[in-house]
Amino acid sequence: MVLTLEGKDDTLLPDFPKGPLQPYRARASFSWKELLLFLEGEEMLRFKRTIFSALENDPLFAQHRGADLPLEKYRELTFLRCKRVFEYDFLSAEDMLQTPLKILAIIHCLGMYDWSLATKYFLHTLVFSSSIYNLGTDRHFMYIPKIFNMEIFGCFALTELSHGSNTKGIQTTAHYDPSSEEFIIHSPDFKASKFWVGNMGKTATHAVVYAQLHTPGGQCHGLHAFVVQIRDPKTLLPMPGVMVGDIGRKLGQNGLDNGFAVFHKVRIPRRDLLNRTGDVTPEGTYVTPFKDDRRRFGASLGSLSFGRASIMGMSIINLKLALCITIRFSATRRQFGPTDADEIPILEYQMQQWRLLPYLAATYALDHFYKSLFLDLTEFQRGLQTQDRSARQAELGREIHALSSAGKPLASWMVQRGIQECREACGGHGYLAVNRLGELRDDNDPNCTYEGDNNVLLQQTSNYLLGLLDDRTRDGARFESPLKTVDFLEGYPGILSQRFTCPSVGDGWDTTVSLEAYRWLVCYLLQESARELSRQRSLGSSDFDARNNSQVYHCRSLALAFMEFTVAQRFHDFTHSPSVPPSLRGVLGRLSALYVLWSLHSHLASLYQGGYFSGEHAGKMMETAILDLCSQLKGDAVALVDVLAPPDFVLDAPIGRADGELTQSRLQLAEQAPLVLGGAGHVPLVACDSHDPHDPHESGTAPPLSFQCGSSGRKQRGFLSYIELYRNLWAAVLQESKVLERASWWPEFSAKKPVVGSLKPKL
Amino acid sequence: MVLTLEGKDDTLLPDFPKGPLQPYRARASFSWKELLLFLEGEEMLRFKRTIFSALENDPLFAQHRGADLPLEKYRELTFLRCKRVFEYDFLSAEDMLQTPLKILAIIHCLGMYDWSLATKYFLHTLVFSSSIYNLGTDRHFMYIPKIFNMEIFGCFALTELSHGSNTKGIQTTAHYDPSSEEFIIHSPDFKASKFWVGNMGKTATHAVVYAQLHTPGGQCHGLHAFVVQIRDPKTLLPMPGVMVGDIGRKLGQNGLDNGFAVFHKVRIPRRDLLNRTGDVTPEGTYVTPFKDDRRRFGASLGSLSFGRASIMGMSIINLKLALCITIRFSATRRQFGPTDADEIPILEYQMQQWRLLPYLAATYALDHFYKSLFLDLTEFQRGLQTQDRSARQAELGREIHALSSAGKPLASWMVQRGIQECREACGGHGYLAVNRLGELRDDNDPNCTYEGDNNVLLQQTSNYLLGLLDDRTRDGARFESPLKTVDFLEGYPGILSQRFTCPSVGDGWDTTVSLEAYRWLVCYLLQESARELSRQRSLGSSDFDARNNSQVYHCRSLALAFMEFTVAQRFHDFTHSPSVPPSLRGVLGRLSALYVLWSLHSHLASLYQGGYFSGEHAGKMMETAILDLCSQLKGDAVALVDVLAPPDFVLDAPIGRADGELTQSRLQLAEQAPLVLGGAGHVPLVACDSHDPHDPHESGTAPPLSFQCGSSGRKQRGFLSYIELYRNLWAAVLQESKVLERASWWPEFSAKKPVVGSLKPKL
Repeated sequence: MVLTLEGKDDTLLPDFPKGPLQPYRARASFSWKELLLFLEGEEMLRFKRTIFSALENDPLFAQHRGADLPLEKYRELTFLRCKRVFEYDFLSAEDMLQTPLKILAIIHCLGMYDWSLATKYFLHTLVFSSSIYNLGTDRHFMYIPKIFNMEIFGCFALTELSHGSNTKGIQTTAHYDPSSEEFIIHSPDFKASKFWVGNMGKTATHAVVYAQLHTPGGQCHGLHAFVVQIRDPKTLLPMPGVMVGDIGRKLGQNGLDNGFAVFHKVRIPRRDLLNRTGDVTPEGTYVTPFKDDRRRFGASLGSLSFGRASIMGMSIINLKLALCITIRFSATRRQFGPTDADEIPILEYQMQQWRLLPYLAATYALDHFYKSLFLDLTEFQRGLQTQDRSARQAELGREIHALSSAGKPLASWMVQRGIQECREACGGHGYLAVNRLGELRDDNDPNCTYEGDNNVLLQQTSNYLLGLLDDRTRDGARFESPLKTVDFLEGYPGILSQRFTCPSVGDGWDTTVSLEAYRWLVCYLLQESARELSRQRSLGSSDFDARNNSQVYHCRSLALAFMEFTVAQRFHDFTHSPSVPPSLRGVLGRLSALYVLWSLHSHLASLYQGGYFSGEHAGKMMETAILDLCSQLKGDAVALVDVLAPPDFVLDAPIGRADGELTQSRLQLAEQAPLVLGGAGHVPLVACDSHDPHDPHESGTAPPLSFQCGSSGRKQRGFLSYIELYRNLWAAVLQESKVLERASWWPEFSAKKPVVGSLKPKL
Repeated sequence: MVLTLEGKDDTLLPDFPKGPLQPYRARASFSWKELLLFLEGEEMLRFKRTIFSALENDPLFAQHRGADLPLEKYRELTFLRCKRVFEYDFLSAEDMLQTPLKILAIIHCLGMYDWSLATKYFLHTLVFSSSIYNLGTDRHFMYIPKIFNMEIFGCFALTELSHGSNTKGIQTTAHYDPSSEEFIIHSPDFKASKFWVGNMGKTATHAVVYAQLHTPGGQCHGLHAFVVQIRDPKTLLPMPGVMVGDIGRKLGQNGLDNGFAVFHKVRIPRRDLLNRTGDVTPEGTYVTPFKDDRRRFGASLGSLSFGRASIMGMSIINLKLALCITIRFSATRRQFGPTDADEIPILEYQMQQWRLLPYLAATYALDHFYKSLFLDLTEFQRGLQTQDRSARQAELGREIHALSSAGKPLASWMVQRGIQECREACGGHGYLAVNRLGELRDDNDPNCTYEGDNNVLLQQTSNYLLGLLDDRTRDGARFESPLKTVDFLEGYPGILSQRFTCPSVGDGWDTTVSLEAYRWLVCYLLQESARELSRQRSLGSSDFDARNNSQVYHCRSLALAFMEFTVAQRFHDFTHSPSVPPSLRGVLGRLSALYVLWSLHSHLASLYQGGYFSGEHAGKMMETAILDLCSQLKGDAVALVDVLAPPDFVLDAPIGRADGELTQSRLQLAEQAPLVLGGAGHVPLVACDSHDPHDPHESGTAPPLSFQCGSSGRKQRGFLSYIELYRNLWAAVLQESKVLERASWWPEFSAKKPVVGSLKPKL
């Protein structure tokens, strides 16, 4: 693995421009280039930079953030960009199937640029194609090349208007008609319309549609997936019997066309049933290759995990971007100080460190985790392809399902909270659209909902753990799983009897202490959840009620704590492995320590309540350790976001640019100002001289720069003396259209005055 | 006070339409009309309904939510609506000054409709005018009538580009020139531009501008406020020397024009200094009527509290709306159930109750609190007007400052989290723009930032409490304050030695138990904060550093806990007062109990850590009590949001309508469907007959309804048999433009195919 840049091309990892971030960069305990190379490897880095560079140099990808872009235009632009990505062909279809992390890389590069584009591309090339690939058989593979040359455009249609979480309740039907060897796809009512389906609104020609399969005689065999053509690729008009449309504006990702479809007895050929797990013979008999229901269930669960693991990754990307913007801003924005004249960067405040740096640590920890989970998933995927029907394969499916079912909630919530914290930590500037934090929050938000509502999904994980406990109690089965995430539970009675022993002051708080506490916590919550469940049952509750009434404060907490622990343990193992270069061990160790402590702190009440902690000192030590770690990481924070940051063009937030130029010296600006102001869109600014040598306001050496704004009918006079401005933000503000122009509706104020009280309201 | 509706006009409180919410409404333990009349009184209710009714009946206020509205158009519309509000003249200028709660009522009615409008109106008629009224003297009152007939339009300009929180660092200057008896308003550089100022972007003709006042000889007398004309009312063009513009798109409230201004030696007459607390003689001598700096400070602090108390109210409005939408949706949306066929409303799930009902309780508690704080403020305001310079008036100013400084953070954060929870609790439907939850979140967001960043503001409150502790330690002064919010601290050494005693099972958990725990908690956090501060100082830290390093886990927690307790105590006193009708005591008592317990639970770790709680049982009892209260309030939840809900026209969220019509029976829709579909904007839908009596899909009694969509060049055929649809949501989706239409850019897919790999990206 290449860890230094000797002999490397400067275009791969160019130095950042000099500027106000320099002092923090100089303070870093490590080289950001070395960490980036260590984490990504040169090939991946080159791959990502190639994508970024293509976008930056292509006028189709010019950024319009904060501009007025009508919905239809934004969708058109997103489609055109998606098509352009096909033309670039960054990764061929074959590479996609073989280099899983590169698939993620391309999605993430596009997502860093714009999630509407990434999702559009992802749903077509990955979700649609892999559904066909994984759920279908040879007879369906003819669709694959058509996907990759865009002959057809695909979408994935599971959710219905009235059934999201409860997919078993899906009402679309597929009746088999042996006389014509066709399935009849039908929506019994409008509540059964497919709803929310990305790409369906305006673009998709084909959909993978989930429906209840019925064979002649009335037997229902449950949910199966079908390929259904919904539009004519030659005209993009709907196929007969299909009512398809756009569900309208959403909170975010509005470049993507989410849609609905109602099927009115749409006939499709028998071959378009995706038949890997179940098929219908021409005569109408249902057949399945699976004998063991539990194994079939495990196998099918595993394949749902792909979407959830992907969402973890998407969420993390959003927090990476938000932290780049916010930490760079915090390192240059000054407010208050020991004296009135001496304001300090807000990153120097313990409060600001505490608000941001734990999220930075969490970003690194979760970034590592989802990548490793993705590799676990590809192992599982290989098993599917090779028809592995072993117990291990099924167990692997269940374990991965449990991890992705809690991993998605953990990541999407953490990121949603983190972006909100970033928005607020940038104050008013975070509320300006041009600084992108709002868009990140809005685009991240659906990650909490799709592929399973977070709270509902967490039950999958707690059920998994409670099931293992049941197996052990009933059958004496060991706690063990292919990825070993549950193996520590084998020691659970002993762990539960442990009590926290304060590390001595000299030793400080080691991460192993935190991990030990987490093990106790998971065991405690597992025991408490099991007790609550059986208490509910003993009160006469049905299983349905008992489970529902054991979620709050019990099963939900269990699933989250187990997940946090798993993420923390993997990140700890990674950061403490011998492969880590000595020069990076310090900073990675601190990130790992902060993530686990900060997460654990959210369970402080349980640690006390369950008796693991006692006395005031334990909690205080924990809090002191968190604040100490924040303080230690403060000097590394800018370099740590430099590792995560895409190029300025992609990050596209004036207050988060790599040059940190909130401010600029008078001399620099005097040179550049005509250019900056000349670029101000519709506002022609003409430099003119109003220098008054006797004016007490002008005492600098450079001549003041004045300008007129000539677009409003009257000259608007101003000046740029003592120039030291928030350059990037100002440039962005002035580049918007009509910034200085009078409102078009000015006579509504000036001429048409209201007659107060002229209208008489009545009830 | 009128508590029953006997003899009341049905138009004041009409019954809700029948529908799926009926079963929950029937279950309520109280009459929503009685509670509404008790809380609001008939006059206020009539006033609000009159405003709502005017909006609903005026085509200028037709709702466009989710539509493509260009920024400029939205701002024009907002201005026109603002002007129309003047024409309605709901409340005269005189009434405004005399009936404080009606001022709030009008802002809140407008805010429920659209915050851009409410803020535009509020900044002009209230913030601008009350700044002149409170900071100015007789010579400025000539501005007041001009404000209320809209001859001029105002804004309030304090914040600068580089100084938001640190207002003492404001850099705009006002030099007095005795030769012309003028002030010269000047921005020394662009960082000193006024920034974020609402109404300044496009509309305002006059601004209250804060600047550092300098008298001849170079003496600076600190920040003072001036009335500065920035635009010509006859043309809306900027005045000479003023560069004024729009800061562009924000995350929300985009109907409001926030702006910036740079002043280049703008001369204004001496009389336009707002001179209540300091003046300059014609010759240039600075004079002030205040002798005691502390009292002057107290007096000026109090007047800042008005904005913060208003923001509390605005925040609560947002949560009211979000909860109306979400709880009505939760009572009708069904998902999962004991059997596959028997799905239950999601409000029946303990998890959903726990996610929403504590926020409902908090809404009631905080709603009561900010109204009572507003009345305290008007008492304080009267003191200002009567030139009361007593110690009590100054203490009242300090106390109200402390309450509003923590009240705004508590309310705005709670609401921001609450809306996010509502968004998620509505699943995908909450992510549709038309359902308004995103807009509420975006419009509420700046409440966390303006009038003081929440974290910075909290320091005002902790400083106030720590100051009282200092006074007591040093001088033996008693803990007491005009509003008695701190009086309980007088017993603090005794309170600190108390320990929690579990209520016996039969008694349950009474609110007095929670309030007692809160008293201990505030005392504990006060003690710990004071200890941390002195520990920091003993390590040699400056006061600046010691304070900054005592915020996290200490002063910040102290301020929040004190505020929660104060809100809870006032709500408890209110709900347990003899004026509460017996029929309402049950539900109000449960709301009070839930708010205090739920808030207290967020401090569970501190209760254990400080030794007030010990053993597993205490925490468990608390959690059981919270869940029990949620369950008890479940049946009242719909009626409780009925009390808070504005008319459907104002709430404007299809899934939150008062009829709860997510679903509708086949027969009803068969009658109405042509109408519903005929209203589908640009999509003409023509009923046609495709009924097939032999079709196995059709087994109902009513004939199926089919339709053609004729707008796409080809007929799109569908059907509406088995009609039972999410009526309101469907109607909203279908009313958007071009829902079913083919994308205008369809040839980009159908004809212009990408040549995969035709572009070669390189680094």
